[in-house]
Amino acid sequence: MPGELRDADGGLFERISAALGPGVVAAAEPRYLEEPRGRYQGRAAAVLRPGSTAEVRTIVRLCAEARVAIVPYSGGTGLVGGQVMAEGPLPVLLSSERMRAIRDIDLTDDVLVAEAGVILAEAQAAARERDRLFPLSLASEGSARIGGLLGTNAGGVNVVRYGNARALCLGIEAVMADGSLVSDLTRLHKNNMGYDLRDLLIGSEGTLGIICAASLRLYPVPAETATGWIAVDSPARALDLLGLARDRLGTAIQAFELIGAAGLDFLAEKQPEVAIPRTEASPWFVLAEVGDGAGSEVAARFEALLSEALGRGLVTDALIAQSAAQRDAFWTVRERIPEANRLIGSVSSHDISVPLSRLVEFIERGGPAVHAIDPEFRINCFGHLGDGNLHYNVFPPKGRARSDFDAVRGRVKGAVHDLAHALGGSVSAEHGIGRLKTGDMTRYADPGRLAAMRAIKGALDPLGILNPGAVLP
Amino acid sequence: MPGELRDADGGLFERISAALGPGVVAAAEPRYLEEPRGRYQGRAAAVLRPGSTAEVRTIVRLCAEARVAIVPYSGGTGLVGGQVMAEGPLPVLLSSERMRAIRDIDLTDDVLVAEAGVILAEAQAAARERDRLFPLSLASEGSARIGGLLGTNAGGVNVVRYGNARALCLGIEAVMADGSLVSDLTRLHKNNMGYDLRDLLIGSEGTLGIICAASLRLYPVPAETATGWIAVDSPARALDLLGLARDRLGTAIQAFELIGAAGLDFLAEKQPEVAIPRTEASPWFVLAEVGDGAGSEVAARFEALLSEALGRGLVTDALIAQSAAQRDAFWTVRERIPEANRLIGSVSSHDISVPLSRLVEFIERGGPAVHAIDPEFRINCFGHLGDGNLHYNVFPPKGRARSDFDAVRGRVKGAVHDLAHALGGSVSAEHGIGRLKTGDMTRYADPGRLAAMRAIKGALDPLGILNPGAVLP
Repeated sequence: MPGELRDADGGLFERISAALGPGVVAAAEPRYLEEPRGRYQGRAAAVLRPGSTAEVRTIVRLCAEARVAIVPYSGGTGLVGGQVMAEGPLPVLLSSERMRAIRDIDLTDDVLVAEAGVILAEAQAAARERDRLFPLSLASEGSARIGGLLGTNAGGVNVVRYGNARALCLGIEAVMADGSLVSDLTRLHKNNMGYDLRDLLIGSEGTLGIICAASLRLYPVPAETATGWIAVDSPARALDLLGLARDRLGTAIQAFELIGAAGLDFLAEKQPEVAIPRTEASPWFVLAEVGDGAGSEVAARFEALLSEALGRGLVTDALIAQSAAQRDAFWTVRERIPEANRLIGSVSSHDISVPLSRLVEFIERGGPAVHAIDPEFRINCFGHLGDGNLHYNVFPPKGRARSDFDAVRGRVKGAVHDLAHALGGSVSAEHGIGRLKTGDMTRYADPGRLAAMRAIKGALDPLGILNPGAVLP
Repeated sequence: MPGELRDADGGLFERISAALGPGVVAAAEPRYLEEPRGRYQGRAAAVLRPGSTAEVRTIVRLCAEARVAIVPYSGGTGLVGGQVMAEGPLPVLLSSERMRAIRDIDLTDDVLVAEAGVILAEAQAAARERDRLFPLSLASEGSARIGGLLGTNAGGVNVVRYGNARALCLGIEAVMADGSLVSDLTRLHKNNMGYDLRDLLIGSEGTLGIICAASLRLYPVPAETATGWIAVDSPARALDLLGLARDRLGTAIQAFELIGAAGLDFLAEKQPEVAIPRTEASPWFVLAEVGDGAGSEVAARFEALLSEALGRGLVTDALIAQSAAQRDAFWTVRERIPEANRLIGSVSSHDISVPLSRLVEFIERGGPAVHAIDPEFRINCFGHLGDGNLHYNVFPPKGRARSDFDAVRGRVKGAVHDLAHALGGSVSAEHGIGRLKTGDMTRYADPGRLAAMRAIKGALDPLGILNPGAVLP
């Protein structure tokens, strides 16, 4: 299909400007054509900046007529190249940056209706102002936008309690590849009228339709919270602690993050200004947060849980944040690790998930598999333990550069991905497929699923104009 | 498409028996051809009873070659005719009754892997034996099967806390219309490898593929629970109570059901053996249940909540179950109301949902809209208030029969459905579309959604052999 596409040209832009006025078509400045890890250099004839869903429809219709590819562009924070098209006919970028309205917040329905260009931090703040929580939270929340977060079914640190972006979305307004509108900004929690297009479009990375607005679920702000920095001997003990916490605290567990000593070493090396919580030295740490309503005594119960865990030998040391500042300090450690990783420069980074029952085995077998390629490689394994989602990143020996290992990068990735797959896991837990992992789709996706996905893509985007080259190999 | 289908005949059954042995093809006994409300009389050339997913694949391939329609048959409890095909070329029924294995229960992954023919009560019991909760619960749980529950995205009484069937399913194994296999029995909580086929097949009522097995989420059994029978003056007060309960108890609210006085009158008339909890007389009641982990003091907090609500005038009386027997007695009232409805015989029954912010308006406007057709009609409005899902059923005046009102049934349905739709609601909250509500799809579904659904149906079932006539008008 992409073979039938044509380069975007001036004629198209004239028609768009004639229909929508002069402010929509803009030059594709370099910042639109890069992605955070610098793996792709995108190309685009222009950036289109519609101000409304109706304008998106017009743009999509005109691009479909001209057989021009559309790359949906949101916050630009995606890590798998979904937002940059490096080859093929010259596309347009369709940016949501002018669609910034929060259309409604309703405290009875507990819903926030946001346009695609709303930045996550803005949505969080708007909810907070009305004494509600929009629980999606991740490192790039200061620039990631709602459209991209839904398009990629983003995860983050609160999935263990509230689910991923898909679980936080009740309804969507989307423009399909022929310019038709799917208008389903429902705020219903139960609606069995036909197929679930919402969940199909969420996570499709702009290849099946363009999400223009969404009705998002709000939750009560937990009146009581507690945050712990907890030293454990091993991932197995961390999982034991998780099991005990589930039994004692149920859904009050809001975050359960694993941090390896390597992550702290990297911080000490590259960002020494970040204060590491002072506990006993330990190969592993858990950053856990709980929250619940007034009267739940969740903080006291969390403290009791940690005492019990210390008594049973599951944990070796634990700090409970005594102030908001200390809580923030704990979280700063977690949130700065990706930047430390970037400054050191990985040979290969991975976003895998495995069933919790196989997580210990993954970590135990991962080290030897990686070190069989180079025994000096450093591994920084950290992430969302409560979801079985690890960022398992492999780094050069100290003093060496990532570029020294270009030749083995593919082997490293293959070793880690093969292991995750063999253990019933995924090689893209939360980042999506984009253009970086289409080869993994061929290698690991169930053939029946892949065939059905292709059939759906062909049915909903027969011209192949929506984000060609992304998701499907 | 259905026009190209052919009657199932002996040649097909010979080929199936030759491939799978003599035990698979059976006579379509009358019990397979009826549905609970008696609205449709189905037809089928035979019931096919595969014992495995591989046998389902063979059957689907042979039916596709023969252009014979397949009606997936699960527990037979569906209320919208999805399981019975009354017209068109003679189909086969594909029953899951011999696929009864619970393949695995894993307490670290908190997952239960069940084949499609497992009865819901069996899955619940298997989880309980391992000290886990499978939270899906509804009146027909003694006969409804996992395949149909997922196929229709069933709801029930615990959706307010745990979500509907879709939210309780991590992965599926399904056979597509060409006999291909979608093998995705994942137990991952995060997996962003491509489009969400799982949520697409769940709720598609067997029109896009046949769900043969599923990995289902288990939860801790709440160590502490409390159940209240609560008198309120109006639905508005019930919603106020819900808001207060959310604030105080958060996700501990497991069920929040509304019951109108008419439901109790119907029970007294038709099932006088059912004991009604003794409270002050009241036009409305709430049946609420909460649950949480050991140490949560959730029962005490629930009692405090009800005291506060009494003090603030939100509720007029409340009983808290003092024993398991009393809890069961409260629930028996709720669960026997549908049977009382059936014994009285409705003019028209509805399964609507509206946003919580419009629920009071729906009830306030519903009565006049119905009584404009006949001022003597009795209305029994009850259901899952916490989800905004009401069963809003209209009955003849006392002493009259439903058949006296055949002429106005359509007007009654139209009045109720138009109102729900006008308030941003759904005319099928949890029962699905089946064959009963395809007209409502034409009338109420967003045209863009409908067009996309048709495109998906055409792509995944180009011959139109899977449950023709269901879901899509």
